[in-house]
Amino acid sequence: MSTMWPGQGLSVKVDDVLFHQRSDFQDVCVLRSPAFGTVLTLDGVIQCTERDEFAYQEMITHLPMCAVKGEPKRALVVGGGDGGVLRELARHSCLEEIHIAEIDGMVPEVSKKYFPQMALGFKDNRVRVEITDGIKFVQDAAEGSYDVIIVDSSDPVGPAQVLFQKPFFDAMHRALRPGGIVCTQAESLWLHLDIIKELARMCSDVFQGGQVRYAFTTIPTYPSGQIGFMICTKASGEAHDARIPSRPPPAQTQQPGWPPMRYYNSDVHRAAFVLPQFAKEALAKHLTL
Amino acid sequence: MSTMWPGQGLSVKVDDVLFHQRSDFQDVCVLRSPAFGTVLTLDGVIQCTERDEFAYQEMITHLPMCAVKGEPKRALVVGGGDGGVLRELARHSCLEEIHIAEIDGMVPEVSKKYFPQMALGFKDNRVRVEITDGIKFVQDAAEGSYDVIIVDSSDPVGPAQVLFQKPFFDAMHRALRPGGIVCTQAESLWLHLDIIKELARMCSDVFQGGQVRYAFTTIPTYPSGQIGFMICTKASGEAHDARIPSRPPPAQTQQPGWPPMRYYNSDVHRAAFVLPQFAKEALAKHLTL
Repeated sequence: MSTMWPGQGLSVKVDDVLFHQRSDFQDVCVLRSPAFGTVLTLDGVIQCTERDEFAYQEMITHLPMCAVKGEPKRALVVGGGDGGVLRELARHSCLEEIHIAEIDGMVPEVSKKYFPQMALGFKDNRVRVEITDGIKFVQDAAEGSYDVIIVDSSDPVGPAQVLFQKPFFDAMHRALRPGGIVCTQAESLWLHLDIIKELARMCSDVFQGGQVRYAFTTIPTYPSGQIGFMICTKASGEAHDARIPSRPPPAQTQQPGWPPMRYYNSDVHRAAFVLPQFAKEALAKHLTL
Repeated sequence: MSTMWPGQGLSVKVDDVLFHQRSDFQDVCVLRSPAFGTVLTLDGVIQCTERDEFAYQEMITHLPMCAVKGEPKRALVVGGGDGGVLRELARHSCLEEIHIAEIDGMVPEVSKKYFPQMALGFKDNRVRVEITDGIKFVQDAAEGSYDVIIVDSSDPVGPAQVLFQKPFFDAMHRALRPGGIVCTQAESLWLHLDIIKELARMCSDVFQGGQVRYAFTTIPTYPSGQIGFMICTKASGEAHDARIPSRPPPAQTQQPGWPPMRYYNSDVHRAAFVLPQFAKEALAKHLTL
């Protein structure tokens, strides 16, 4: 239950509490559920489960990575301390540097211990981890230094609220090279259409001359069973359509022990941008047509 | 909670129980929820809510109606006693006859009283209502007499179990004209992949020379937030691809008081057949490529 989805909640049977501690920023808890395997909650809200995390991690990563024009060399993750987005970025052999700015050092530690399949991402030798404020990190980054920035945040209440606001988007826009893409966790069409509308309006303002689009994935353990992404392309003078992949998915040949990709493919990429009529109408004014 | 989705459940705050009675077939209950409006449950399982029913009713109806080749004149609904599918069928002016075979007479009565926006469908003068066993009704239908058959059933436990079995699909195949389409409620990719696989295998057997495809819609109040449809086309000798609409959505001009369509459009039609990689791989053997 949460003020973000009043009057409803997902009930999950829990066999065990594996870890429960307050970090400097939030309540961190790891549960064992017969239906979803190991579950991470922050401030009581499910962040990821062993069973369905791939639907989120693959989509928030491969949508921008496969849409961006020109070979991406440098990617940044803001948040994402569980390592799942790093794992998906690491599948892209074209990347030379993968940075992550996570504010809460407890999250990577907990992930390495209880979610080894997600924390795999930390093992890639292109990854540089900074336990720091993501906004400050982005503001300090060199102008035009990233091809892709992924914001893997919790909901816009509490510590993640600033990650939904204009100063942060201005800083990301500056840190992207022309044609670069920001992809941010952007809530549920079924529950948060007003938040999404406001976010899209602000992004259109920041990414003038570029593109602002919305895509979504299905995922049973997020409220309403889906979550979306705001995908903003910085103007480059070249024509671009983030709905059409510029490159194929990364090769499925992985190091031993890595899970295969289970959600994303190029058809899923294109379909993810097709919105139900009610959402299309509500967002028409603020998204790129 | 249900054996159909062990270890998880959707919790919905309830303000009022508006109706609660046992019919000859099942427990029928109408609740008032602040988040979802009026809610219908059968045997304790949410069947539809005022807030999101359109996502299901529009998709189970317009997918087959807009995919079928040649103008559909006669449609049959099996189940669907709430009237929502009838409402969506009634938007298609090409239809001359709309039949419904619902086993439980209490459901239409409850819907007319508590869900007037769904029960609108019963007012269309092309609609003929039969309170009867759907299987018997289909077996008695003239061969090749329907263009489209929609099976709007509850889950394959209890009274609806037979609606997932081969004798019923054989009867529907016989009752369809060549090129006609059956569209059935076919559970969740996230929860019931084994049921779906088995259903697809059986449908491929029945609809030999035709097509068997799977599409899905998002809907917050069904387990895992989505539900799918098995869409089977009877062989006609002509090429056909149910993923591509043969006709535009019905006109939005409605009688006064009718709600507009809010989910389906032609792009949503095409995108609904694009399955996540894990589902595509699991069903590849049994669906038409």
